[in-house]
Amino acid sequence: MTPEEFRKQGHRLIDWVADYRAGIAARPVMAPAKPGAIRAQLPKAPPENPEPFETIFADIDRLIAPGISHFQHPRFFGYFPANSDLASVLGDYLSTGLGVIGLSWQSSPALTELEEVMTDWVRQMIGLGDGWHGVIQDTASTSTLVALISAREKISNYALAKDGLQGESAPLIVYVSGHAHSSVDKAATLAGFGAGNIRHVAVDADFAMQPEALRAAIEADRKTGLKPCAIVASVGTTTTTAVDPLQPIGAIAKEFGLWLHVDAAMAGSAMILPECRWMFEGIEAADSLILNPHKWLGAAFDCSTYFVQDPEHLIRVMSTNPSYLQTSVDGAVTNYRDWGIPLGRRFRALKLWFLLRSSGTAALQARLRRDIANARWLAEEVTKTPDWRVLAPIHLQTVCIRHEPSGLQGEALDRHTLAWADAINQSGGAYVTPATLDGRWMVRVSIGAIPTEREDVAALWQLAQDSARS
Amino acid sequence: MTPEEFRKQGHRLIDWVADYRAGIAARPVMAPAKPGAIRAQLPKAPPENPEPFETIFADIDRLIAPGISHFQHPRFFGYFPANSDLASVLGDYLSTGLGVIGLSWQSSPALTELEEVMTDWVRQMIGLGDGWHGVIQDTASTSTLVALISAREKISNYALAKDGLQGESAPLIVYVSGHAHSSVDKAATLAGFGAGNIRHVAVDADFAMQPEALRAAIEADRKTGLKPCAIVASVGTTTTTAVDPLQPIGAIAKEFGLWLHVDAAMAGSAMILPECRWMFEGIEAADSLILNPHKWLGAAFDCSTYFVQDPEHLIRVMSTNPSYLQTSVDGAVTNYRDWGIPLGRRFRALKLWFLLRSSGTAALQARLRRDIANARWLAEEVTKTPDWRVLAPIHLQTVCIRHEPSGLQGEALDRHTLAWADAINQSGGAYVTPATLDGRWMVRVSIGAIPTEREDVAALWQLAQDSARS
Ligand SMILES: Cc1ncc(COP(=O)(O)O)c(C=O)c1O
Ligand SMILES: Cc1ncc(COP(=O)(O)O)c(C=O)c1O
Repeated sequence: MTPEEFRKQGHRLIDWVADYRAGIAARPVMAPAKPGAIRAQLPKAPPENPEPFETIFADIDRLIAPGISHFQHPRFFGYFPANSDLASVLGDYLSTGLGVIGLSWQSSPALTELEEVMTDWVRQMIGLGDGWHGVIQDTASTSTLVALISAREKISNYALAKDGLQGESAPLIVYVSGHAHSSVDKAATLAGFGAGNIRHVAVDADFAMQPEALRAAIEADRKTGLKPCAIVASVGTTTTTAVDPLQPIGAIAKEFGLWLHVDAAMAGSAMILPECRWMFEGIEAADSLILNPHKWLGAAFDCSTYFVQDPEHLIRVMSTNPSYLQTSVDGAVTNYRDWGIPLGRRFRALKLWFLLRSSGTAALQARLRRDIANARWLAEEVTKTPDWRVLAPIHLQTVCIRHEPSGLQGEALDRHTLAWADAINQSGGAYVTPATLDGRWMVRVSIGAIPTEREDVAALWQLAQDSARS
Repeated sequence: MTPEEFRKQGHRLIDWVADYRAGIAARPVMAPAKPGAIRAQLPKAPPENPEPFETIFADIDRLIAPGISHFQHPRFFGYFPANSDLASVLGDYLSTGLGVIGLSWQSSPALTELEEVMTDWVRQMIGLGDGWHGVIQDTASTSTLVALISAREKISNYALAKDGLQGESAPLIVYVSGHAHSSVDKAATLAGFGAGNIRHVAVDADFAMQPEALRAAIEADRKTGLKPCAIVASVGTTTTTAVDPLQPIGAIAKEFGLWLHVDAAMAGSAMILPECRWMFEGIEAADSLILNPHKWLGAAFDCSTYFVQDPEHLIRVMSTNPSYLQTSVDGAVTNYRDWGIPLGRRFRALKLWFLLRSSGTAALQARLRRDIANARWLAEEVTKTPDWRVLAPIHLQTVCIRHEPSGLQGEALDRHTLAWADAINQSGGAYVTPATLDGRWMVRVSIGAIPTEREDVAALWQLAQDSARS
């Protein structure tokens, strides 16, 4: 495509996206698609000859827009806020338009240096000490895998890099909260620890890891000759935003010489608020930390900021240096390919740069405070309504609720919960994600899409009551 | 940012990118930046209050554009063609603008179903049988890691998923060509095999893996009680585009029950040309295959298509199913989160959809043929010029050359080679990547940026001769 054709179709695409975002509230939040229905409307084979852009744009309206669930919708309360602020979108547009790739510093110096500065801006915003170093990864899942691989190698003093995990005689053990995100177990399995060597530590009544239970598990494993290796603490669990207490967990990590990785994928954004910083008390004892600006903060997906205290642990494990990647300045620069799994890297720092500059930190703080206030408001409404319960403390923007009409229990209650949640989603009026808590289904209301105002939360609450009654 | 502000700044950004691409030939190909110089011009801390877009755009011109090496430049001959066709760029713009995330099929049905169809289009274009199933990953590095983890788990009949690699008594061994990309060794190390358990099989005079040497290595390891696990064959190595012979390698994999992964990251795009299909002879014996449409084919980075014969091997290792990700249609749909490492996924299929529809396969074939013809032309020019040598067969678009004036040998020759390559890069007139071959430096001329025509290759050749003479 020529630059002039791009100019023409690009303007059209900008208008399409602007119109889409401006009119998003009128769309059903969850895609009403049936499995296979979109696939069935696509040609089985690629075209031999060019198709005009007219038909491509027509297909966006016909197939794509009705086939997606609208994460940017004001009544999206599913999963987590996956905000893609339009300023950040423009930063990503610049990145894709430039079409440069980070392979080494030299392959695009600005890509590396802006990433150094943007991760440092985020570091300051969330109140980390200046000993931390940041890098942008695609997701929290990948970052936690990177953390556990680093832990695995560090504990063997890098012998594993040579002999492999298979060289270990005493199995290495990973400790996580029973409420950790599924990506943590997945990471431990992919890193080769084995699912049987993951300990799910008991949680307290607020669903936070119990330090005494953690200590007991470590001591029991040591007694039987196993080798404790890493702890993953969650600050803001997916189900209830529970906060594992970092201070005592950090002390245990130090005492036993274990790697401490903190998964603050979702809640990390809230650390820009002084009133939420208590959740990070003890963070300086951690070795690594992940938080996703592509969630609540508003950076276009994918943008996970991974912080480490000592980059050497990353570099010693991840570094490659074939002749075709060497440059004369390697000693004087950061080569981020040594800080993660992929070789090629997008210019992701641009989307943070655009976001943080066009918003400023004060406006981001105000938006997050709005969402927390909305969550508290909803929790109060639910609490004062007969037969409705709030099931977990409101630390941030997630409200876990259940309708418990008298007489309904056990599986019958589960069926009722899933039925009204499904009714909400099928109605197109809002989108929520059910989840289990203590073995029973409930509904997570995850507040915080950028356009979500109090009236949207109120509408969801009305919809929930109507759906649960019918 | 509001949709109306986005409309305004978006149009401006489209014009900026169109102008950038239209005027790219006038820029120095390699960024003239000094280490730290860009960082030094950026504010140390994030702004408290919003900055106007005027200043952001001014900074793009002041800091970003001069700070990157221009991969889309007609005289970019470095690394590999990292084409970011402007139609594909628009597909990526749509993806980022929609701001939807693939967590499950339900979280955006079109994201999943278009990915199924686009990877199937690619499958047909490169002549794979219809038993193969595709998924889009970020990079070849990640995909090869996924392949080796799958191999590791399959050979243990999934016991490893439970006990970990540490449960293995006999170390698992991985076989790769001595010319495999550095990402292959990295993947094996990250997957926990250990660098000491990677065998670098000898190559022939054309730098392709020797099947007899492979067989000998496997037999020797079995004799000493080790457990051969996987072979990684390269179709199109990075240094010289050498082609490991898949037919005999596949037969050996079958005979010994090993996983065969094929890294065709770069050369895979050429399989859309019938005259290049000989490189894929024997491919049906492979278990997994990676090729990067984000290289020569023209898809905006990142877009790696990973193909497997049996997705169950992926799913059994990668799958997670916490309550908050379950949906009522899970049995009837593809949940791509189980096909790779990250949970969240971008709507990457759009960039392939836009590229393939707006080009058509015929135009892509014509472009690749142009590049191959340019490589042959350059090789002929070099061959007939005194003191110049072509060092490897021209299978595709990479030409490995050296200037060998009489009297220059060994390290002196290396210094000369690196000096004239550096002179080219510093001149801004073209960009090449030196690499070592048989222990000596040479210069890879990797042809195939979308705007690169014969005259650009001729200009590079002139520049090389001038630089080597001075
Ligand atoms: C606490 C937590 N950790 C990890 C993840 C995984 O995020 P990602 O999609 O970036 O891997 C999520 C959200 O999905 C999360 O809430
Ligand atoms: C043969 C080969 N394999 C793997 C890679 C790595 O690609 P990626 O950056 O997608 O990981 C490259 C190119 O860099 C390559 O040429």
